[in-house]
Amino acid sequence: MTGRLAIAGLGPGDAALITPEVSAALAEATDVLGYAPYVARVPAREGLRLHPSDNRVELNRASEALKLAAEGRYVVLVSSGDPGVFAMAAAVFEALEAAPECGDVAIRVLPGVTAMLAAAARAGAPLGHDFCAMNLSDNLKPWELIEKRLRLAAEADFSIALYNPRSASRPEGFVRALDVLRTAGCGERLVIFAHAVTTPKERIETVPLKDARPDMADMATLVIIGNSATRRVGRWVYAPRRAS
Amino acid sequence: MTGRLAIAGLGPGDAALITPEVSAALAEATDVLGYAPYVARVPAREGLRLHPSDNRVELNRASEALKLAAEGRYVVLVSSGDPGVFAMAAAVFEALEAAPECGDVAIRVLPGVTAMLAAAARAGAPLGHDFCAMNLSDNLKPWELIEKRLRLAAEADFSIALYNPRSASRPEGFVRALDVLRTAGCGERLVIFAHAVTTPKERIETVPLKDARPDMADMATLVIIGNSATRRVGRWVYAPRRAS
Repeated sequence: MTGRLAIAGLGPGDAALITPEVSAALAEATDVLGYAPYVARVPAREGLRLHPSDNRVELNRASEALKLAAEGRYVVLVSSGDPGVFAMAAAVFEALEAAPECGDVAIRVLPGVTAMLAAAARAGAPLGHDFCAMNLSDNLKPWELIEKRLRLAAEADFSIALYNPRSASRPEGFVRALDVLRTAGCGERLVIFAHAVTTPKERIETVPLKDARPDMADMATLVIIGNSATRRVGRWVYAPRRAS
Repeated sequence: MTGRLAIAGLGPGDAALITPEVSAALAEATDVLGYAPYVARVPAREGLRLHPSDNRVELNRASEALKLAAEGRYVVLVSSGDPGVFAMAAAVFEALEAAPECGDVAIRVLPGVTAMLAAAARAGAPLGHDFCAMNLSDNLKPWELIEKRLRLAAEADFSIALYNPRSASRPEGFVRALDVLRTAGCGERLVIFAHAVTTPKERIETVPLKDARPDMADMATLVIIGNSATRRVGRWVYAPRRAS
């Protein structure tokens, strides 16, 4: 008997941002897998097996989810935010390529509110014009590629959302990213640091890039760098819809 | 008495993708404003005034919403998808700059599942690596800027989500966009056409860019152009997490 696998996004933190589609899947699941802090957000109930796992084991976790589903279970694999944005969905499809015996599992991807949308909403509308989203972690790509993309994004005058800007193990990456953008002439652009957005620890800070300090970001921070037209009105920050 | 204004995202279409936060705001509102097809998605109830309006009057609609809120009403201004992505939030902040007398209105932006996330979820995980999002409408920016951004996005090897790819009044823009990307060497990249995603009219089609025809897109289509590594596994399309 072949089961089901839903790859679900829990949103940025606030339970009021979990879609009814995801809540329904969690209510029906037999097994929930995910990085431990995300699994901890799922309400326990009788008959539901929770399988929390460590960070940085995405591919193992994805394979395990597929395997359980292939055995006939109804598995929900949880990510924070949206599962398709720097999260578990891509890992599942990688795992699926390596496990053709799981090809009959009924897979669904259940979208969610990804961190940059929640951060943007709290700040105003900094993603109201063309933008890009980058994962600043260099675990899975060379730093040279990150620098190249930052330079091209600056030249394109995209607003830039940066996921995973800074971790204890590689604090220097974000320092270099800020340097690249300063060198590219972005010193006057507004930068939003959105920490732990929609949680009780939320903190939003906006400064011009030239005044941004690396320690304003950690792994729970989503950074949005405005485009050249991004401006303030009162306490809000927004990208005008019109560009010339 | 000063009221409240919530700028809310209704998600891509399916009611199961409306966040509980947005549903709560709609349940409490006195007035709902928005483009008529979006207002039509809000359940009617006694005491709730619906103010549908035409397309392309974003700034007027935003001003009207602020004015009603300043009179003490609880106004919800609805967008499809997420209000911060090519939708009403930026228009409200533009209107607020022009209406300092509305500066006391309590504004909240309520995020939602934007079309590219829902389209990506249906297709697999094409936004699982760095990507950009562009509005292909040239109502508010010159076409030269759109072309420049497309060229730079191709050079950066971003996956590219295109909103508003094509309308009856300017069918040629999308044709030119495909040409720019072909010339930039993207002919082999996979392109996903996600039409009316999460609605009963949903239709998803994936072809290499060299085989893409402009009539595969209309204004209800979200287009995602994969990066150079985007690949298929079974019926799914995904961007590998690793890049070299």
